Amino acid sequence: MIPFNIICRDCGKETQEDKWRWRDECGGALDILFDLRGRQFPHLVDVGEQNLRRYAQLLPLQSLPPVHQGWTPIARRSISGVEVNFKLEYLSIGGSFKDRGAYVSVARAKELGAKGIIVDSSGNAGIGFSLMGLLSGVDVSVFVPNHAPEGKKNLLRLFKASVHEIDGDRMDVNRAALAAEQDGLAYVGHWWNPYFIEGVKTIAYEAYEQLGNVDFVVSPVGSGTMLLGLHKGYAELRELGAVNEMPTFIAVQAYGYSAICEDLGCKPPAAPSSKLADGIAIADPPRRRQITDAVRTTGGHCVIVGDEEIRQALVELIELGFVVEPTSATAYAALQQCIKAGSIKAGTRVLLPLTGSGFKLVDELIALTAR
Amino acid sequence: MIPFNIICRDCGKETQEDKWRWRDECGGALDILFDLRGRQFPHLVDVGEQNLRRYAQLLPLQSLPPVHQGWTPIARRSISGVEVNFKLEYLSIGGSFKDRGAYVSVARAKELGAKGIIVDSSGNAGIGFSLMGLLSGVDVSVFVPNHAPEGKKNLLRLFKASVHEIDGDRMDVNRAALAAEQDGLAYVGHWWNPYFIEGVKTIAYEAYEQLGNVDFVVSPVGSGTMLLGLHKGYAELRELGAVNEMPTFIAVQAYGYSAICEDLGCKPPAAPSSKLADGIAIADPPRRRQITDAVRTTGGHCVIVGDEEIRQALVELIELGFVVEPTSATAYAALQQCIKAGSIKAGTRVLLPLTGSGFKLVDELIALTAR
Repeated sequence: MIPFNIICRDCGKETQEDKWRWRDECGGALDILFDLRGRQFPHLVDVGEQNLRRYAQLLPLQSLPPVHQGWTPIARRSISGVEVNFKLEYLSIGGSFKDRGAYVSVARAKELGAKGIIVDSSGNAGIGFSLMGLLSGVDVSVFVPNHAPEGKKNLLRLFKASVHEIDGDRMDVNRAALAAEQDGLAYVGHWWNPYFIEGVKTIAYEAYEQLGNVDFVVSPVGSGTMLLGLHKGYAELRELGAVNEMPTFIAVQAYGYSAICEDLGCKPPAAPSSKLADGIAIADPPRRRQITDAVRTTGGHCVIVGDEEIRQALVELIELGFVVEPTSATAYAALQQCIKAGSIKAGTRVLLPLTGSGFKLVDELIALTAR
Repeated sequence: MIPFNIICRDCGKETQEDKWRWRDECGGALDILFDLRGRQFPHLVDVGEQNLRRYAQLLPLQSLPPVHQGWTPIARRSISGVEVNFKLEYLSIGGSFKDRGAYVSVARAKELGAKGIIVDSSGNAGIGFSLMGLLSGVDVSVFVPNHAPEGKKNLLRLFKASVHEIDGDRMDVNRAALAAEQDGLAYVGHWWNPYFIEGVKTIAYEAYEQLGNVDFVVSPVGSGTMLLGLHKGYAELRELGAVNEMPTFIAVQAYGYSAICEDLGCKPPAAPSSKLADGIAIADPPRRRQITDAVRTTGGHCVIVGDEEIRQALVELIELGFVVEPTSATAYAALQQCIKAGSIKAGTRVLLPLTGSGFKLVDELIALTAR
């Protein structure tokens, strides 16, 4: 493990870390900062491993749990002359990319003395944390909206988590989880906790090793962990001399949950809020400014999609062989908007993560695709 | 593609292939026979691909569909000093190793002119064939026992297959499927069709590239496609100079479905038939002698497991992070029997495929693991 500091993105304070903190005392969001000067990416990769242990030196962990995680496949397809590289994050042991963030977060919370963890989630993050808690002998309490899909809640139960169903919206769930914080129990909510992003950034490392650099990254944005993780991964790859420039980041949001799009100057259409994109239905993500900066500094923009587009994209993804959940289809719908609008042109290379498995909600998929 | 013949394992007749045949005119089972003389494995691998296209030269296809398939992860764990390499076949796009066999079979049937395919299956094979049919524009009719798990039948519907539910046992389902055969519709049932084994054999190629050779292969046996596929893969690796000797094959069967075990001289205990191992509940597999030979010639033996062992193995697999179906757990239960009996000793290396995803039947897993 390379030495690292923790930096507050609001007040700029930089400290060594000695206890679990999910945000700074000032209220700002924290990030992990490795000292990468003079280092080169290939020397930091353990090529004998095809899982997260491959990047052990670049993760903020003293030791990595012996659990298979990461190294998901890339499926390449040419779409209107664009080379689209689907990263199949849904083929993960817990069924979504959030397993990566949960892996690093739970391991670090345990290293720092936590006996249990508290998490709030609409589904996949809770599943990832519950699974990693089960594998690590850490108690897991998950707070979920009571309207979360039954298939996902059942998985929390399979992984022996205590499930707390909260009446209200996603913000009410967040408040309930924070109220449960106490000594020995670490709040690991992925909207804030900086270790989560460390897990997710490995998607960029893998994609770089699997296919070299890309021109565009098209990423759904709810709390922004996927986009911020990919952004941090590519930024580190640049610092480590692997890539010369950052890909352009396209942020994808759904009707009714378009904070990032608005901050980037888009005017969302007057339309009903998305019901399908439940994984990114977050009105006001805590890392809002950071996400906006990441998109803007790479020359990117935001795309807003509606439920009929999402449904159509889901049907097409299944016909390509990708059984994913509706939230994952937002990025594919956005890609098609970009190709149509000419902002992504033939001859370019795109990385598009497919985030969550559809096997958790087959009945819902049948209803959606039957039309 | 290397030239190949088709050989009948019963009458020994060897022919060039020009039309779809799932078994020989004499009633015997067919196998694909490549002429591998003078060839070496590394020269036949397309290292730029991390999917079945990697092995295009060793597959009986003129062209390979642009669908991601294969290159599943290996998770390594030390268990009582034995190096156990779990091959995570359940992290496949259709959720089981049968996707591989379906990929090759559907592509070949289409190359040979089939407009539609007919398959009989208790679940995963039907899912793999339906998905590959959807992706290839081939109509799929699946015959299933009416007691097959609902979660699996729903996936067939998601993939637009015509589902025929048959009242009776697995043999009745087989008879119904065969009765539906007609011009333009290829029967691709995996119990017989030799192309299915060609897809499955790639598991051995991948395992060899991922970890080198192993001492033991522990494989569930229903119709025997997993074991025969692995056996053919290793036999070809030996012919191609990659490995010096075959691993020892351990066949795993469940109470009540122990034809191979009996042929190998085991006396199954007087116990009720397994209800959990539905994926291998096949009384009299057509390739019975071939399976027995494969086990015997590698110095292997058979292990029979019961439902309580399977249930316990399933709980332990989930605690290791592997959310699989009960049938997959049979091999892990058998491994533990072998370690206890001393037939697999500390210091040896084992390949153990985890065959099917548990995400298709979460409710059932909760009920099984709650005790």
